[in-house]
Amino acid sequence: MLGSTYGTFTTDPRRAHVVACGEAPAPAVHGQAATADDLDVSGRPLHAGIPDLDRFFCPESVAVIGASDAEGRPNTGITRQLMDWAERGGTRLYPVHPTRRSVFGTPCSPSVADLPEQVDLAVLLVSDPLPVIEELADSKVKFAVAFASGFAETGAEGAAAQARLAAAVERSGLRLLGPNTNLNAFEKFRDDLEGPAIALITQSGHQGRPVFTMQEIGVRLSHWAPTGNEADLETADFISYFAERPEVGAIACYVEGLKDGRSFLLAADRAAQRGVPVVAVKVGRTETGARMAASHTGKLTGADTVVDAAMRQYGVIRVDGLDELQDTSALLARARAPQAEGVVVYSISGGTGAHFSDLATEAGLRLPALSEAKQAELHQWIPDYLNVANPVDNGGHPVGDWRGRKIIDAILDDPEVGVLICPITGPFPPMSDKLAQDLVDAAEQTDKLVCVVWGSPVGTEEAYRTTLLGSSRVATFRTFANCITAVRAYLDHHRFTTRYRSPFAEAPRTPSPSFRKAQALMRPGQQLSEHAAKQLLRAYGIRVPREQLVTSAAAAVRAAGLVGYPVVMKASGARLAHKTELGLVKVGLTSASQVRDAYRELTDIARYEGIALDGVLVCQMVERGVEMVVGVTQDELFGPTVTVGLGGVLVEVLRDVAVRVPPFGESQALAMLSELRGRPLLDGVRGAPPADVDALVEVVLRVQRMALELGDDLAELDINPLMVLPRGQGAVALDALAVCR
Amino acid sequence: MLGSTYGTFTTDPRRAHVVACGEAPAPAVHGQAATADDLDVSGRPLHAGIPDLDRFFCPESVAVIGASDAEGRPNTGITRQLMDWAERGGTRLYPVHPTRRSVFGTPCSPSVADLPEQVDLAVLLVSDPLPVIEELADSKVKFAVAFASGFAETGAEGAAAQARLAAAVERSGLRLLGPNTNLNAFEKFRDDLEGPAIALITQSGHQGRPVFTMQEIGVRLSHWAPTGNEADLETADFISYFAERPEVGAIACYVEGLKDGRSFLLAADRAAQRGVPVVAVKVGRTETGARMAASHTGKLTGADTVVDAAMRQYGVIRVDGLDELQDTSALLARARAPQAEGVVVYSISGGTGAHFSDLATEAGLRLPALSEAKQAELHQWIPDYLNVANPVDNGGHPVGDWRGRKIIDAILDDPEVGVLICPITGPFPPMSDKLAQDLVDAAEQTDKLVCVVWGSPVGTEEAYRTTLLGSSRVATFRTFANCITAVRAYLDHHRFTTRYRSPFAEAPRTPSPSFRKAQALMRPGQQLSEHAAKQLLRAYGIRVPREQLVTSAAAAVRAAGLVGYPVVMKASGARLAHKTELGLVKVGLTSASQVRDAYRELTDIARYEGIALDGVLVCQMVERGVEMVVGVTQDELFGPTVTVGLGGVLVEVLRDVAVRVPPFGESQALAMLSELRGRPLLDGVRGAPPADVDALVEVVLRVQRMALELGDDLAELDINPLMVLPRGQGAVALDALAVCR
Repeated sequence: MLGSTYGTFTTDPRRAHVVACGEAPAPAVHGQAATADDLDVSGRPLHAGIPDLDRFFCPESVAVIGASDAEGRPNTGITRQLMDWAERGGTRLYPVHPTRRSVFGTPCSPSVADLPEQVDLAVLLVSDPLPVIEELADSKVKFAVAFASGFAETGAEGAAAQARLAAAVERSGLRLLGPNTNLNAFEKFRDDLEGPAIALITQSGHQGRPVFTMQEIGVRLSHWAPTGNEADLETADFISYFAERPEVGAIACYVEGLKDGRSFLLAADRAAQRGVPVVAVKVGRTETGARMAASHTGKLTGADTVVDAAMRQYGVIRVDGLDELQDTSALLARARAPQAEGVVVYSISGGTGAHFSDLATEAGLRLPALSEAKQAELHQWIPDYLNVANPVDNGGHPVGDWRGRKIIDAILDDPEVGVLICPITGPFPPMSDKLAQDLVDAAEQTDKLVCVVWGSPVGTEEAYRTTLLGSSRVATFRTFANCITAVRAYLDHHRFTTRYRSPFAEAPRTPSPSFRKAQALMRPGQQLSEHAAKQLLRAYGIRVPREQLVTSAAAAVRAAGLVGYPVVMKASGARLAHKTELGLVKVGLTSASQVRDAYRELTDIARYEGIALDGVLVCQMVERGVEMVVGVTQDELFGPTVTVGLGGVLVEVLRDVAVRVPPFGESQALAMLSELRGRPLLDGVRGAPPADVDALVEVVLRVQRMALELGDDLAELDINPLMVLPRGQGAVALDALAVCR
Repeated sequence: MLGSTYGTFTTDPRRAHVVACGEAPAPAVHGQAATADDLDVSGRPLHAGIPDLDRFFCPESVAVIGASDAEGRPNTGITRQLMDWAERGGTRLYPVHPTRRSVFGTPCSPSVADLPEQVDLAVLLVSDPLPVIEELADSKVKFAVAFASGFAETGAEGAAAQARLAAAVERSGLRLLGPNTNLNAFEKFRDDLEGPAIALITQSGHQGRPVFTMQEIGVRLSHWAPTGNEADLETADFISYFAERPEVGAIACYVEGLKDGRSFLLAADRAAQRGVPVVAVKVGRTETGARMAASHTGKLTGADTVVDAAMRQYGVIRVDGLDELQDTSALLARARAPQAEGVVVYSISGGTGAHFSDLATEAGLRLPALSEAKQAELHQWIPDYLNVANPVDNGGHPVGDWRGRKIIDAILDDPEVGVLICPITGPFPPMSDKLAQDLVDAAEQTDKLVCVVWGSPVGTEEAYRTTLLGSSRVATFRTFANCITAVRAYLDHHRFTTRYRSPFAEAPRTPSPSFRKAQALMRPGQQLSEHAAKQLLRAYGIRVPREQLVTSAAAAVRAAGLVGYPVVMKASGARLAHKTELGLVKVGLTSASQVRDAYRELTDIARYEGIALDGVLVCQMVERGVEMVVGVTQDELFGPTVTVGLGGVLVEVLRDVAVRVPPFGESQALAMLSELRGRPLLDGVRGAPPADVDALVEVVLRVQRMALELGDDLAELDINPLMVLPRGQGAVALDALAVCR
């Protein structure tokens, strides 16, 4: 158990638990800290800090504080496991305990100060890690792991204890994993598997087990970071670190809540720039899930639609099940970049081909018809009456002889084809064994993706366990659905990263000239009047109708003359919502007498309802266009978010809205519109002209700028409706509601 | 290999392939034929014919026509397999071949006429089964199976050959399985499994294999009907037959296309009445899938939304993947009726509980919070800081000792709890082995449903293969998603069948008085004018606005006076659509001069556009209400269908419509409305009053009646808009389009 430098024993079996250690070191970008230059205009960082965790995962020496060999104590099992792990990896391990002389025969020190060397990592098995962290503050110990529970996951008191712990960690210069974590980082990893690996990050040990166990079916795993309560090191830190590691092909995450929205996005941005896929399960689809998750690790879950959008913005592949997490991350870790986007389904049964193609097409995969020439080529080996256009149905028999491999190679040879999927629904050894072998052999000879679905519910068959799972070049699945999900994620990921440009590079760092004007309009703690809210919009260059705020009937008539008939008149006042329902809006006024009457009526209603007005708005009437809503909402996790939706009944009843987390560019603003079910309305229906989508996008981007510059001070903004006029004519905010914090 | 009557050897191992034979016979309802009394007003049958297939699945004697033992011939393998099957089951088998003297040592007859007895079943291995069917016409042979392909699945010529075959079968009095089928009905079934079984129906052998193979993980299968091209016996026949068999707990189907929509619904109705769940994969979600399926078995797929609705009407559980088919049908076959609808999630990890609950809640399962008393009971064994409200998180340790079983029993003992689900994401033998055993033991002692998700991707673990799969009382899954899908189907199925009333019992058999009036209005091959279409509606008691058809400006003014101002005027003529876009509608006319002008303008436009009018409609103006659409469309598979949707932009852009296949009752009409995303509009939004839903439902039912009585003659009907007025004020069809066939 002598110490050795990692990296000099690349084939040493003792390295079993640290397969990732000794690989080529990551580029020296570690430890970047955010400086004032690295902040956007909202004060949020523009770069991820990338911690150097090499010595955390591959420490040369470890102290186990609270080590035990007393029977029946939980710490005894943990100590035993750590000693085994250290022995396998050649790590020097020192038990520490105030009273014990030795633990499992290894001499025990009473405190860290008494150790023969300053260790890389301290594992804290004590119920209160705070004093130990304070003790370690002046040492050279770089990392600590705290197992103790009873912190933020238990409520307010625990959260306060966790805050004290976090503060101590920050003072100490240490990096801490936990509290409320476990031994997962120091499990026994297989070191006989080759190729790119999955790095795993989970907030729950039990939930990471299915991915970890994939090593038993031949999928390589390089790391497991069980982040627990994330008092210090968080999911984002591990994403950033893993994205730099050359052996990591994909990052798989199980996330209950995020510590900080921005740090997550910066890490995801880093991974996207490096082309490393991040696949994540994120709990919180429902209120129930969000509540449960919060009580498990004491973290914020964020509004689920916002989490969903944020992940999509940065190409994080969100999946629902742990089985999807397994299958998708394994595929993405191991498959080479696609050479084409076409998917071919190949089967020994027309029924299977039809069924698989149906589901694949519905999921958005593109199954191009093979060319006439390719079909003729395939018909050399496949009877003429069978369909080989795609899906390719071989009818069964050709699989049994030399033709089987020819068919597979011919399909893979087609330049339009990037993925071949062969669903084998049942084991029928005379056919399926040979088919599996042919697929494996063909996959070893190509850079294209070969997928097999092994549909048998048994899974102990030789062709499955030995032939298919024995090859890292074939992606093997158990269900059609998981295969389709993974292949779609694979194609999406590569399309996404190829086109990806970090939005942080172009995020505004200094306030625009609009900002000063806007600041002057803000009224802390108040809802602005419609008129003031519209001035805010105008400050950011968003068009509002010609309008005047008047306080007498005569002024109203003068204003109408200036604005131009017909006019709309509305009561205006702070804290005034639902004006239409209250009868505080009059439309289509075409004469001075109508304006006078309307003025009187509006002020009468307001008086009767006890509503304080700052006046009556006389506005230009804008009729012909598509009603949209654009707004800003504050998310507990991500800060200001921008929403856009179809107006009127659509937003009222169907909540047909799309959301984005700033910063984002024009392409994301356009993507938001594509997400709307009512999108065709913008193209013109029932003979209506196409709407000015460019102007709409411009408004969305200006609202984003406003959200970034006003930051938390703008609690809420709602432009409803934004009338988008026919193409070339712009968009006008007809009403707006703004709430200042 | 002497003959024996099935049923006398209930434990005879030779019965291996016919586990279902010898069970209690099904009630004597077989062979019902539709009579004139059994037809609804559209001429469609009201009762399923239930064929007696006992002797098909369990023949005493079989002739194999085209038997072979020549090396390398496909028929040789089939003959061998049939002989093995016959030997196992004690069936007398006779090879038939014009030239061979013996096959595998068994004497061979030159033709069926030369056989020593008239067999129950003839297996036709010949390429053209037609002459053999004709030869068998006068014999007592009850059933034939035709393996030959090259029929409807190959195109028009094959379809004609299949029609000739079907006609010959009908003349013969035989029942035929196939053509284009296989040996699946005569596979080797396990007979050592107990409890209710799955009966399997598939149109593709390869696609049935995953369900069949479930026998290897302990799930009992009683029958497999590979229906192929269904020239005679179809999926519906087997559903009807299996629904009567006492050993069948659930029917699993793989369907590419249906032969006849009505026979499928009647069979599903039969199964629903008998409480036998039908779980089905139906290809055709996309155009691609529909096309592929049609080319595989040459059958109609129907519009997918209609198939989907039809299945829901009769409680058929539609799933997408074969894995879902496996898991859902296995659960439904074996689980007893639920005693309560509450689901409790029980886990050794808070993270797993949170994640599973999140997905389950999103899928619509109800996870009630356990009572304070129950929680206190659980806290006897589970530490206080863990959440036991539901999900129940035991923190891990209690599983290891006597407390593990106590907790499970206490949860199952709660009267609100019908289902306990324990997701075990990873095998950790010290815990998971004991947990699995406790769950199995508890499940054996209760009628409640106990489900386990075994999340390990390996699946060779002892606790999984022996403990969990060894018990038919625990439903074991490999993924969260499949468990949730199956449990939801289980609760839905029992809720559905408990409330189920067959709509066929109340379907109209004779035309209503409206029918004669309507008939007089039909114009074969034509689109009716708006006025005529509205008269059709009026014939069925559907309210239309007061209106008059006029042919002069003076008559228009007189009509407006009678109808009452303000009025709407519209051009009326056959083949006239998109009136609004053409400017052929004038609304809000308030004076005689406006009416005169409008008359002139409408007729001018029509003249200019070259549109023949039967006049101009002067209609009462109806403004305040919710715009809906109600219509009739002909489906290739199911005949007339009724749709209802939200009008205006919602139907135009979002296709927010619900569809039903007649006959259906009021509850289904209400259910249609619940399916609409825009449903809240009917309850009143933005201060609008609630709409007259009763009147809307009444219109839907009257339109159904019209669709049934006019049958195929009414190619299309579209009431758009139907203005649904505030509650108590009814609904008015403002415009209608009707196309006669």
